[in-house]
Amino acid sequence: MRIDGRDFRTIWLDEGGRDVWVIDQRRLPHRLETLRLASAEAAAAAIADMTVRGAPLIGAAAAYGMALAAAEDASDAALERSGAMLEAARPTAVNLRWAVERMRRRLRSAPEGERRAAAYAEAALIADQDVAVCESIGEHGRRLIEAARKPGKHRVDILTHCNAGWLCAVDWGTALAPIYKAHRSGLMVHVWVDETRPRNQGASLTAWELASEGVPHTVIADNTGGHLMQHGKVDLCIVGTDRTTRTGDVCNKIGTYLKALAAMDNGVPFYVALPSSTVDWRIADGVAEIPIEERGADEVTHICGLGEDGEVRRVRLTPEGSPAANYGFDVTPARLVSGLITERGVCPASEAGLISLFGGEERAA
Amino acid sequence: MRIDGRDFRTIWLDEGGRDVWVIDQRRLPHRLETLRLASAEAAAAAIADMTVRGAPLIGAAAAYGMALAAAEDASDAALERSGAMLEAARPTAVNLRWAVERMRRRLRSAPEGERRAAAYAEAALIADQDVAVCESIGEHGRRLIEAARKPGKHRVDILTHCNAGWLCAVDWGTALAPIYKAHRSGLMVHVWVDETRPRNQGASLTAWELASEGVPHTVIADNTGGHLMQHGKVDLCIVGTDRTTRTGDVCNKIGTYLKALAAMDNGVPFYVALPSSTVDWRIADGVAEIPIEERGADEVTHICGLGEDGEVRRVRLTPEGSPAANYGFDVTPARLVSGLITERGVCPASEAGLISLFGGEERAA
Repeated sequence: MRIDGRDFRTIWLDEGGRDVWVIDQRRLPHRLETLRLASAEAAAAAIADMTVRGAPLIGAAAAYGMALAAAEDASDAALERSGAMLEAARPTAVNLRWAVERMRRRLRSAPEGERRAAAYAEAALIADQDVAVCESIGEHGRRLIEAARKPGKHRVDILTHCNAGWLCAVDWGTALAPIYKAHRSGLMVHVWVDETRPRNQGASLTAWELASEGVPHTVIADNTGGHLMQHGKVDLCIVGTDRTTRTGDVCNKIGTYLKALAAMDNGVPFYVALPSSTVDWRIADGVAEIPIEERGADEVTHICGLGEDGEVRRVRLTPEGSPAANYGFDVTPARLVSGLITERGVCPASEAGLISLFGGEERAA
Repeated sequence: MRIDGRDFRTIWLDEGGRDVWVIDQRRLPHRLETLRLASAEAAAAAIADMTVRGAPLIGAAAAYGMALAAAEDASDAALERSGAMLEAARPTAVNLRWAVERMRRRLRSAPEGERRAAAYAEAALIADQDVAVCESIGEHGRRLIEAARKPGKHRVDILTHCNAGWLCAVDWGTALAPIYKAHRSGLMVHVWVDETRPRNQGASLTAWELASEGVPHTVIADNTGGHLMQHGKVDLCIVGTDRTTRTGDVCNKIGTYLKALAAMDNGVPFYVALPSSTVDWRIADGVAEIPIEERGADEVTHICGLGEDGEVRRVRLTPEGSPAANYGFDVTPARLVSGLITERGVCPASEAGLISLFGGEERAA
């Protein structure tokens, strides 16, 4: 995607073809800084400290981490050590282990002298495959946005929650991919960006992405979407999902469920964009079966922002004596979801819908 | 209510019987500071700069402002000037004009030499009447909380939004009054406090009130309530209202509607506490007829908190290039409201319900 008119991915190879560059997402939206990763250790650190975040991007960063490891020492023992180190960087990230394991398998089968080249080729393939999946989601979703345009209204107003944009992937993103595709095709779109407390990924990452790409948007407090929908100011909602049940329940950033309820109450279509890799075919009831991560209370009690002196500062929002709770996700039942936007097309949020597009995967699971 | 075990109101008279003291609410929750108001000008400034806020408290502060004016110069001309100045301090506050007009009428009918005493007596009456109304709401609501206790569960979990506590009134508050009454009666209660972006009245004022009174509570991001209700962690919701239609629609802080939707979806009772003075008998359809105030975008793009250096600092949350919108309130339709808790008891959120308690007022309107 574009920043100041220049095309970017979230991760790319140095001109020399060895080192890896990433956008340092900890500095956004107040600073755009890039970081060179010259070793597997540097890649692991970037994953651990959230310089890079988002499941697809973590996978790509880990794959390039294995390439950096192979550039240094392509022996079985060295690659095993690097793989274990990378996997430990974010213990709960499914995509991370998947990418490391895929790299391991590819490299094991190659002679030691060819592993370096094979590693860079495989990492590039992982990144390119992610871009292709996201771009396909974008194309399928763009048609929904076009169809949502109201007669006599010159623009389509879309509400999104959290950041499911290109910053969490290699390019395009998931929920934002249809918006970028619509915008580039000349359709007038405007995005209501939920700030997404407590980590504010909407206000910091989604708003910054959209501003960089030139997509009209407005940041709102998470409390606002219902009011906007009551007054006809939202034509459709598109959000992402971290985990999708085979019945079409979606587990996404906390607060998604509240917006889905408001969309249902006001007849606003509510779509969820996802790569099929997020579907967990073992699970049928999202509310009952998906454990919800509880994160540190300090994400609620404190917040970071740009001080009037130009420094990024952390301030306390709550009284000293008040505890806080921080649930990371909630589950939106399939009955509130108008459809799932996948790399193979749009389907109903149901087992039949998912099987109509991904029947083979389901049987394989 | 209590702060460090000491009883407080939000506004009280100096021992000398002339000057007025208030809690400086701009400093909360990070500092408890009180401020002496020695003139009508000082009272008007405290209203204008939000040292005091909340409709009932603004009314009481304006009444005491008229008393301070009468203490200085009780002539018709001087009182007229002071009344106009006080009314201009917050142009949209209905309660402010009501209180000033009530004081004006009372003082006009008194001989100039008796006006000072009459003014202090009338201001004290306005404050005491507000306390009585809130305390009655508290008693009626307390019974609902007792009834909401689930068999075998040792505590009642209550969710509230924004600040409808004693800080917005003279004492007790509206939505929090039943909670304080239940807590003092020995019932185990625990309050989920929505932080209430963008102005964070929940995280700063409600949390501070509850902590000061010793009521167990947990601050949560506004996104969290739906998830809690899905998992049986909320027994009932109680919120306030700024304006209530004669049909029982309630206009309250933005985000209230989303919580009411989640309560309905999960079978959680959703109550609204209100003094009958918030009922607007002329209005039947809240969503269509109540204009919603749009406030400055900077309340969304910036936030204040306590810096690590102990100073209260303001930081920017959003990218420079991203606009923001800030709607102050939303309307929760009566169909989502389990009941209205008023000073005369609890009634259905409907025209028939309100008339059953306030039929006389309705006919007089």
